[in-house]
Amino acid sequence: MERKVTLAHGDGGELAHKLIQQIFVSAFGNGNDARFDSAFLSLNSGEIAVTTDSFVVRPLFFPGGDIGKIAVSGTINDLAVAGAIPLYMTVGFIIEEGFPFADLRKIVRSLAEEAEKAGVRVVAGDTKVVEKGGADGVYINTTGVGLQRVSGAIDPSRIEAGDDIIISGTLGDHGIAILAARGELGLMTDLQSDCAPLNKMIHSVIEKGCDVKMMRDPTRGGVATTLVEIAEDFSSVLEIEEQSLPIRNEVRGACDILGFDPLYLANEGKVIMIVSHSDSEKVLDTLHRFPEGENAVVIGHVTGKGIGHLLLETPLGSKRRLHRLSGMMLPRIC
Amino acid sequence: MERKVTLAHGDGGELAHKLIQQIFVSAFGNGNDARFDSAFLSLNSGEIAVTTDSFVVRPLFFPGGDIGKIAVSGTINDLAVAGAIPLYMTVGFIIEEGFPFADLRKIVRSLAEEAEKAGVRVVAGDTKVVEKGGADGVYINTTGVGLQRVSGAIDPSRIEAGDDIIISGTLGDHGIAILAARGELGLMTDLQSDCAPLNKMIHSVIEKGCDVKMMRDPTRGGVATTLVEIAEDFSSVLEIEEQSLPIRNEVRGACDILGFDPLYLANEGKVIMIVSHSDSEKVLDTLHRFPEGENAVVIGHVTGKGIGHLLLETPLGSKRRLHRLSGMMLPRIC
Repeated sequence: MERKVTLAHGDGGELAHKLIQQIFVSAFGNGNDARFDSAFLSLNSGEIAVTTDSFVVRPLFFPGGDIGKIAVSGTINDLAVAGAIPLYMTVGFIIEEGFPFADLRKIVRSLAEEAEKAGVRVVAGDTKVVEKGGADGVYINTTGVGLQRVSGAIDPSRIEAGDDIIISGTLGDHGIAILAARGELGLMTDLQSDCAPLNKMIHSVIEKGCDVKMMRDPTRGGVATTLVEIAEDFSSVLEIEEQSLPIRNEVRGACDILGFDPLYLANEGKVIMIVSHSDSEKVLDTLHRFPEGENAVVIGHVTGKGIGHLLLETPLGSKRRLHRLSGMMLPRIC
Repeated sequence: MERKVTLAHGDGGELAHKLIQQIFVSAFGNGNDARFDSAFLSLNSGEIAVTTDSFVVRPLFFPGGDIGKIAVSGTINDLAVAGAIPLYMTVGFIIEEGFPFADLRKIVRSLAEEAEKAGVRVVAGDTKVVEKGGADGVYINTTGVGLQRVSGAIDPSRIEAGDDIIISGTLGDHGIAILAARGELGLMTDLQSDCAPLNKMIHSVIEKGCDVKMMRDPTRGGVATTLVEIAEDFSSVLEIEEQSLPIRNEVRGACDILGFDPLYLANEGKVIMIVSHSDSEKVLDTLHRFPEGENAVVIGHVTGKGIGHLLLETPLGSKRRLHRLSGMMLPRIC
């Protein structure tokens, strides 16, 4: 049996068929018909939510996960933070000639397991093979399909002064774990990526009737970039307190040494929520019941409307304006 | 303004935001909210069809199309041949550092125009940038979402001996056009790729109540590989006549010189239909009304059930068994 993926595995013939059967169908085994790349799904009437994402993370295997796991959690979280119930996913693999079958199998199994744990079905997939040098190992693209809730829909236009800004846990874990795994910066740490699907945790918050105005997952560009986008998208002044930011010691230490700012590092298992102040405690209580949400905390407030700004209050009490990530920080982070 | 895509365009910060706004949102401008990578869609109750595909074609621009156009036609056709009405698409771009903005813009516009012509909305997208050498220019992954028809559903279990096998047009145009465009084989031809969305043509056939048992688009691996898959998937003996195969002179000539078999070359704007013999004429009449179907013809018949074989009847009257494409024919064909 072949040990490495070859270009012949991508040309649609016998080997491609075997690749799909042995590695993909066996992992997902979802009882679909003959076709791997398409599916029919039943949905109750209503609105469906669709999201798409590509995963080019390096290295492919890192502490806390791999590209397969991150493909699932990233896609599920995009749907969950939009208030949708994630149901189905499609996966498209672009594989470099020479990529070891064993690694491909690991990645696909990781993806399948993570999807199953989160209760999401992988319903369609595709593989393409490109020549050596045409891709860096493997890239994964996903599309997630979910059902929009009828009640408990998220309506960001309701964001108002006085609302609390909650983060579900510590900042920058994924960014630092990836950097350490790359071995480039002499960084030694046990820190794991936080990548995880948050749909069940988010579902719990919404089902309890908490007044959540909006949610977003602070991936590329970090919490700061995400909050700037929210501020601009919904013409709101957001203020966060540096003292309130939950940051692990290892992350703080690594950032001090390397000159990074945890506010701009990627997170792959965190959610930002803007909630009515009166429901803040209820939201935190709910999040704290989940391992992914044990360090949830209020980090700031919405202080005004009509203009889109993000302000950081320093320990000294002064406030400075934060902007999107500019220039380049960390490529291939997710 | 930048002329080339850089890694900074992929890290989620300011430049990535501009990239999305200037190139993607301006092309699709579908009135979505602030988010480019997710969308809410209304669907009537019923079954939705989902398909996914990745496009790694080289060269990126070829006679008759480009990677953007093929991404749309490939996705739409996957849904259409499954009997679904294509409605929405998502697009994920993986872009190599240094890729010219001008080319990216052309590709995105081509994709947007083709989708609009076919009546399909591009609802979500994503871009990632990888370092030079990490991708070959640009790759596109798509997921298509469509509505399964309530009446006129395609049921391949109804395939029976006596059914006709129809191809909507000439074999191998795309494969030869790509080879010529690569300039590798000293091939000179005006031949264009046939890549085109076939949803409107297919819709017409179904709406007229033609008894279509199954449809499939003969892309990678060509008509032969596709028919072998159908034969095996539905335990049927399919027989095609070499004399009946519609093949352009330029394709025949190129194949003779280069040693290729048109039956195994990729097609990006053709559909195979297995239809009840009594509806054959009606199907052909309908196809002939469309430019994409002007050369539609019956190429063979279903001759038995219970075993999955594809047989080719030669001009001399002898029959030989055809198998899937084995080994490698043409990489990066779609």
